[in-house]
Amino acid sequence: MNWQKTLTEYAAGFIEGLVQARVDEVVISPGSRSTPLAMLLAEHQDMKVYMNIDERSAAFFALGLAKASRRPVCLLCTSGTAAANYFPAVIEASLSRVPLIVLTADRPHELRDVGAPQAIDQLHLYGRYVRWFADMALPETGEDMIKYAKTAAIRAASVSRGLLPGPVHVNFPLREPLVPLLEPYPFNEKNPGPTLPFSTEGHLQVPLEICREIAEKCSSYEKGLIICGTIDQKKFPEAVVELAKTLGYPILADPLSQLRSGSFDKKAVIDCYDTFLRSNFVKERLKPDIIIQFGGQPVSKPLSLFLKTIRQSVEHIIVDGNGGWRDPYRLSTHMVHSNETVFCRQLQELAEKKQSQSWSDLWTRVNDQAKSVIHSFMESISDMEEGKAVYLMSHVLPPESTLFIGNSMPIRDVDTFFHTNENNIRLMGNRGANGIDGVVSAAVGAAVHERPLFLLIGDLSFFHDMNGLLAAKLHKININIILLNNDGGGIFSHLPQAGEKDFELIFGTPTGLNYEYAAMLYNGQYTKVLDWEDLDLSIREAASNEGLNIIEIPTDRTRNLDVHRALWEQVSQEINKYLRSDEQ
Amino acid sequence: MNWQKTLTEYAAGFIEGLVQARVDEVVISPGSRSTPLAMLLAEHQDMKVYMNIDERSAAFFALGLAKASRRPVCLLCTSGTAAANYFPAVIEASLSRVPLIVLTADRPHELRDVGAPQAIDQLHLYGRYVRWFADMALPETGEDMIKYAKTAAIRAASVSRGLLPGPVHVNFPLREPLVPLLEPYPFNEKNPGPTLPFSTEGHLQVPLEICREIAEKCSSYEKGLIICGTIDQKKFPEAVVELAKTLGYPILADPLSQLRSGSFDKKAVIDCYDTFLRSNFVKERLKPDIIIQFGGQPVSKPLSLFLKTIRQSVEHIIVDGNGGWRDPYRLSTHMVHSNETVFCRQLQELAEKKQSQSWSDLWTRVNDQAKSVIHSFMESISDMEEGKAVYLMSHVLPPESTLFIGNSMPIRDVDTFFHTNENNIRLMGNRGANGIDGVVSAAVGAAVHERPLFLLIGDLSFFHDMNGLLAAKLHKININIILLNNDGGGIFSHLPQAGEKDFELIFGTPTGLNYEYAAMLYNGQYTKVLDWEDLDLSIREAASNEGLNIIEIPTDRTRNLDVHRALWEQVSQEINKYLRSDEQ
Repeated sequence: MNWQKTLTEYAAGFIEGLVQARVDEVVISPGSRSTPLAMLLAEHQDMKVYMNIDERSAAFFALGLAKASRRPVCLLCTSGTAAANYFPAVIEASLSRVPLIVLTADRPHELRDVGAPQAIDQLHLYGRYVRWFADMALPETGEDMIKYAKTAAIRAASVSRGLLPGPVHVNFPLREPLVPLLEPYPFNEKNPGPTLPFSTEGHLQVPLEICREIAEKCSSYEKGLIICGTIDQKKFPEAVVELAKTLGYPILADPLSQLRSGSFDKKAVIDCYDTFLRSNFVKERLKPDIIIQFGGQPVSKPLSLFLKTIRQSVEHIIVDGNGGWRDPYRLSTHMVHSNETVFCRQLQELAEKKQSQSWSDLWTRVNDQAKSVIHSFMESISDMEEGKAVYLMSHVLPPESTLFIGNSMPIRDVDTFFHTNENNIRLMGNRGANGIDGVVSAAVGAAVHERPLFLLIGDLSFFHDMNGLLAAKLHKININIILLNNDGGGIFSHLPQAGEKDFELIFGTPTGLNYEYAAMLYNGQYTKVLDWEDLDLSIREAASNEGLNIIEIPTDRTRNLDVHRALWEQVSQEINKYLRSDEQ
Repeated sequence: MNWQKTLTEYAAGFIEGLVQARVDEVVISPGSRSTPLAMLLAEHQDMKVYMNIDERSAAFFALGLAKASRRPVCLLCTSGTAAANYFPAVIEASLSRVPLIVLTADRPHELRDVGAPQAIDQLHLYGRYVRWFADMALPETGEDMIKYAKTAAIRAASVSRGLLPGPVHVNFPLREPLVPLLEPYPFNEKNPGPTLPFSTEGHLQVPLEICREIAEKCSSYEKGLIICGTIDQKKFPEAVVELAKTLGYPILADPLSQLRSGSFDKKAVIDCYDTFLRSNFVKERLKPDIIIQFGGQPVSKPLSLFLKTIRQSVEHIIVDGNGGWRDPYRLSTHMVHSNETVFCRQLQELAEKKQSQSWSDLWTRVNDQAKSVIHSFMESISDMEEGKAVYLMSHVLPPESTLFIGNSMPIRDVDTFFHTNENNIRLMGNRGANGIDGVVSAAVGAAVHERPLFLLIGDLSFFHDMNGLLAAKLHKININIILLNNDGGGIFSHLPQAGEKDFELIFGTPTGLNYEYAAMLYNGQYTKVLDWEDLDLSIREAASNEGLNIIEIPTDRTRNLDVHRALWEQVSQEINKYLRSDEQ
């Protein structure tokens, strides 16, 4: 058997394994060493190939695809630093628990660590950030080696979407010549048959007596809270809302909890806590006895401070269905490793239905009151300002659209200004490591599956990942970018170093870039919005436009800060007043 | 003592250590957790701060600074994926042996691995790619802890420029509040005194009897070659040229050996071997008995094939002054771990001066002949083509300028078309891992110290690192970019997959970008060159222009390939003919 046939059967076997494991999207970056895998992936009729030249962008693009589809996505690059460019997205995928299958081509063993061109040490390249690493054997002939390749692919997919979903890394040493045989069609058209493993990934569930114990606690406490951070499980919203109804507890819902929009009952959902949990008086009045918390760390800092302040006297149950330990402020009195949706249902069945609604009514009334203050305050703003931009956007986004939210200020503004609605808007973001890197690419990737998709992003984050726009151009992906341009790092104005020496040099970092040229570079449509009517109109237009649309909103860092501070002050005053009058 | 004072003294101590170790350049990316280090670095009067928003670009920029200055450069970023963006440049620095001191701010221990925002596992983040890693203690008060911080900085600098220069990583866990005290001036103005270690990094030297043995071998062989790959030691060119004179051996000089331009005697330097070592007849005639090789892997593939073919009957001495094992094709009969310049001088002193010059004359005549064929061939080309662009450039670049060379095709074309000259042009490139990533940033960094600097780069590599242009804009750095735009991956047309199915999708990868908009985005001057006179003029103009100049040369991938093949064919024919007539 000749080499080309050996190479082809082995690499095709791996790809057949991927397809059997229901992986059907791959993002490829150009390279020579990866030739056999790239050509065979492109050849497989069930595999959709996206080309992405910048590997950093490619990996975030894959992350976006995987987040949107909730399925593992494959990545392929050549040997050398190409693979190192995946690292930021691999870390983000690891922390945000998104399945990625990273394939890297490598030089064969005899060219490792001897100064050969484009040869770096790729073994365990991503350290502890991948759930599984395999350095594959060199291509070999024979049924067993082909089954080995197929099984490795199935296992890679299984681990990536397993108990703790995340990235896996499979490294392929390959020798020249690298061109596979594409004729005859190199894949087995029939089902590969019963000899290959189908894998099923289980979920965590805790013993019934533990649930019963917690249910009893909940029945005995009138004042309870449910907190939902970042979580994206299809049936979770309904399950947690039902649980809240039974327990009579309000749900403090982070924007990425998927609880602020959708067709379920949102009566229990509290969405203004970030604004009203800033006054000590309010915090004292709203102190719970028990908390049940789901998902990744909520974005709200006032919420974290509130939880830290009261932790001495509260039972705090943290539920993590992936077996992690998400408790940065050591709040938990009980860490429950159970699938979140399953746990909600179990608890709801076991708990007694609360008779009094006065506790949850109190939260709802405070929340409504805060929302009404925010509403009036926002209506009074005429200058361009970031908070109001987000506020308006939340009213204008078309139903069924997706909002991808950048880190730093945008996610915080969405927390404050994007309230519950019936528009079934999916909110997405990169909240594993909260980086400002890779956001454009992730959003463009998500936009493949979600349409219309709007990305809300600050100028530094947009700049960081402008390369991500090329995928939109090359693959004709529709994406609408709302660019909040305050020419620098707006979040730093909120920190104590604001106004210190060298502030603009090391924190403000204005770039002075005119992003209209970026739009032109990538064949995008560009609008600079100078008043609020414009914004409304531009968003509506963008939703129906094809391709890349950039809507830039020029804002001012100092004014943004002043508006936020004034709003927080006003909400605190009004809520204090309201609670005092309520008590009389 | 209060916290702010503790934080300030500890962080300032580390920075004093850096300055004492003669580190005076730092590239900072914006962030919150890194606040104390960033503010104190900006405050130190002997530290030059460069701000660079995209950490991937920042790290390559630092690499360029360090390459140009031949001194360690510091990097600072905040916690999270920011640090992961350094990874490609850290690997490149590791393989190309360039000193970098990577400082990363981290969350304190109690916020690690518990789902805290922007907290990733930064311990040993760069795996085996750094020469030293230290996870610093949290800031503490007291003379001994300040000395600990100072010593860590001195050690970091020492290791980074030590026996095997490269990157080091120092991770700083930091607690809030993060703002240091800038008044009074936080640094000790006087010399820190004799209690701090000054470090001296030694070099490798082999016993005299080993040198004598090699000298005797060289005296006994008339037919010897010296091969110089990538090497950048100030006194190496003169030392190796003197050695060559004594031994009567020609020097095959890679473009990055720094032997093609400079004020030393270039009589022994062979610069057309990549073109004439393609014919079996020529290779047979020019077969040596002994080879002494210095530096990183030469770019020429024909040279590698030549060396592989003859390895059974040649003594091959590889000299690696950093104690590495640079021998991908298992050629060495002797691996010598000695500083290259020292070894050249020792060997020259011990070796007998050769009487006959006929062997080196043969090489010189073949080289001259090949050069004359290349010359005529180039003169005959009228269409825009990449080889000719490089050829012309080598004649037009002003004396004392620096040429930074992109990977993939540009470095290969420079190998073929950039011949010896008296213009003292410094040639630079990223030949550790040969990536197309980070090239713009590295060149912009190098341009801080080298002026005028020209970057020769292909369009994919330019696209990959366009963000690197922001540093040129913000720091008013002069850089001239010659952009060879063949709209895609030109090198793949040289590989066997050219013309295979899906070639354009996965290898050709045309982007269709109009880079004039990139120039506009970064306030650059842009010229598209459409004929050869234009190119000449544009290069001369750019050299005296301030700021960013982009000179785009549109070329065609297929035509480039045809020209290269025709040239190689013609040189082989002519040299074969020449050698045959020589023998008669």
